[in-house]
Amino acid sequence: MSFDVTPQSMSFAEPLPLRSGSAIADYALAYETYGTLNADRSNAVLVCHALNASHHVAGQYAGQPKSQGWWDNMIGPGKPLDTDRFFVIGINNLGSCFGSTGPMHTNPATGRPWGADFPVVTVEDWVDAQARLLDALGIGTLAAVMGGSLGGMQALSWTLQYPERVRHAAVIASAPNLNAENIAFNEVARRAIVTDPDFHGGHFYDHGVVPKRGLTIARMIGHITYLSDDVMNTKFGRQLREGLQVRYTTQEVEFQIESYLRHQGDKFSEYFDANTYLLITRALDYFDPAAAYGGSLRAAFERATAKFLLVSFTTDWRFSPARSRELVKALLDNRRSVSYAEIDAPHGHDAFLLDDTRYMGVVRAWFDGIAKELA
Amino acid sequence: MSFDVTPQSMSFAEPLPLRSGSAIADYALAYETYGTLNADRSNAVLVCHALNASHHVAGQYAGQPKSQGWWDNMIGPGKPLDTDRFFVIGINNLGSCFGSTGPMHTNPATGRPWGADFPVVTVEDWVDAQARLLDALGIGTLAAVMGGSLGGMQALSWTLQYPERVRHAAVIASAPNLNAENIAFNEVARRAIVTDPDFHGGHFYDHGVVPKRGLTIARMIGHITYLSDDVMNTKFGRQLREGLQVRYTTQEVEFQIESYLRHQGDKFSEYFDANTYLLITRALDYFDPAAAYGGSLRAAFERATAKFLLVSFTTDWRFSPARSRELVKALLDNRRSVSYAEIDAPHGHDAFLLDDTRYMGVVRAWFDGIAKELA
Repeated sequence: MSFDVTPQSMSFAEPLPLRSGSAIADYALAYETYGTLNADRSNAVLVCHALNASHHVAGQYAGQPKSQGWWDNMIGPGKPLDTDRFFVIGINNLGSCFGSTGPMHTNPATGRPWGADFPVVTVEDWVDAQARLLDALGIGTLAAVMGGSLGGMQALSWTLQYPERVRHAAVIASAPNLNAENIAFNEVARRAIVTDPDFHGGHFYDHGVVPKRGLTIARMIGHITYLSDDVMNTKFGRQLREGLQVRYTTQEVEFQIESYLRHQGDKFSEYFDANTYLLITRALDYFDPAAAYGGSLRAAFERATAKFLLVSFTTDWRFSPARSRELVKALLDNRRSVSYAEIDAPHGHDAFLLDDTRYMGVVRAWFDGIAKELA
Repeated sequence: MSFDVTPQSMSFAEPLPLRSGSAIADYALAYETYGTLNADRSNAVLVCHALNASHHVAGQYAGQPKSQGWWDNMIGPGKPLDTDRFFVIGINNLGSCFGSTGPMHTNPATGRPWGADFPVVTVEDWVDAQARLLDALGIGTLAAVMGGSLGGMQALSWTLQYPERVRHAAVIASAPNLNAENIAFNEVARRAIVTDPDFHGGHFYDHGVVPKRGLTIARMIGHITYLSDDVMNTKFGRQLREGLQVRYTTQEVEFQIESYLRHQGDKFSEYFDANTYLLITRALDYFDPAAAYGGSLRAAFERATAKFLLVSFTTDWRFSPARSRELVKALLDNRRSVSYAEIDAPHGHDAFLLDDTRYMGVVRAWFDGIAKELA
């Protein structure tokens, strides 16, 4: 059983300066909160989302029983991040397509959709925008910030941009930056979108079309990288879709894995914004807190004062355990408090969204500890 | 220094029955030969090619100093496969786009290019076509068949389809079939091509266009899977293309790896045929000699009588060492003669085309042994 939640929105008139040198004014952020902020405002937990997620982290919308948030297994009453004890906030990132101001909204300078002219946003910009929203909610210090994948990068960045405002940070299935292979996959996905004739240089809204072909390819590529080789072989293997005989066709579906990927791609292309895809994958590419320190993660994390939980999954080849261990080492070199769990899970990067007794147990125990500090 | 070679072509009037149930008549195969067939016709070595290669295996075309064949480092006078001792044959596979009959040639039934109507060809069909060409050359038995990747699958299939005609088989960086992840990458590449509006259902020749966007994406995906994570990080890492500052752009190149992939993709789209790409990736998908034996590789290879050399490369995640080991086990279970080398190389799947002292040494020693048997 889940619990009912209501999305909210907050508008900001004051321009938000962006790392690109640009700024954005008159923007809105969609967000949700669960649980109750305690009297001394010390039990707030911010949950940051990855590429294809939103402020709708947990719970369901009234009367829509299949509308559970993307981390509903992790967050709610009695769950590892327990909303009976913590006040949880989810915020849709600027430039996303689930309610916050993004490329499909009107560019005040032109009166037409922003499209490809939406300013490039970075992980650091998102964190700044989140901090402003927390200011407006009267939350000075977070009990914790938590995120998986790109969400984990935001949690990391919180500990560097606002060290005094974050007491704990949970960084799940993440990395200190993308490696060349990660960037390469992002780039192929972006090329598929940008070269789709329906992209129209990012101003497809004016043409009444959507670059669905490109979005479909982008999602298919993404999906392969979210799954492990093992889980693909277990779930699909070489199973044919129809019976036992191949049909000898180059364009029709033969194998179950093809059918699955096409379905995932088509579904995604129905709802995701192409310009948002470009923006979010670029935010991933750009994130690299060590860059300003000559590549030294140790030096970059000197500023961080939070207590950390890092979790990785053995079969995650997108953000491998080795990348989490780099972070653990940089934090330990700075004598920071770090708990690290490397979960032996078959599901690849997707594992961070799935139920796993040990994983859930680790997160629960960590938040139990934080709750005790609050009491 | 390389040596001069001349491509040849051989026409076949008699229909070749195909595994799909179809057949193709009046086809031609482009091929090259190097070295001299000895008096008892016992020193012939067939070299099979993979996706993006051809009959031009070694040597160069007169007056074209940059026209070396794709395996010129491996094959030639004094090289590991020594053309002073062996008579080497390279054949462009049916359906390819480098000289043999393929989708861009005229379909006699319509008088227009075959396009997407070119019959689906399998590894087994290619081997049958190669056997006919060897018949015409008067070669009954091969001293060896050799191939890497998809070429290795053809070498494997030779030992199953014509066990009495193959004395040795070298199977490099190959696998007994594709796994779900391999098929998935092929499928994304195919979707990129097929959904390119310039594909026109595979009959783009009639429209005077080429689905370059799709081919570019397909090649970019392929390239990522040919390289290891390690070599990408070493060669490109997070290096920016222009100076040290990011430019904050979602559509322009920022990182060197993007520039490299775009260049590889664009180059490929200039010369490779889109229908050939579909045909060859499907041949890869379909190859599965164990399927007819309830999935038992051991049972499938009972027929094989050749002596085998298998080579894999530690960082090859497309055709991993584990896949070669499956083959080694199946062959040993049948008490076949197998040499197996697992080469510790950083280059991923591409390693099979590159110089590596140990790899070259293994192949050289293996062919030395075969030469001694001949003497």
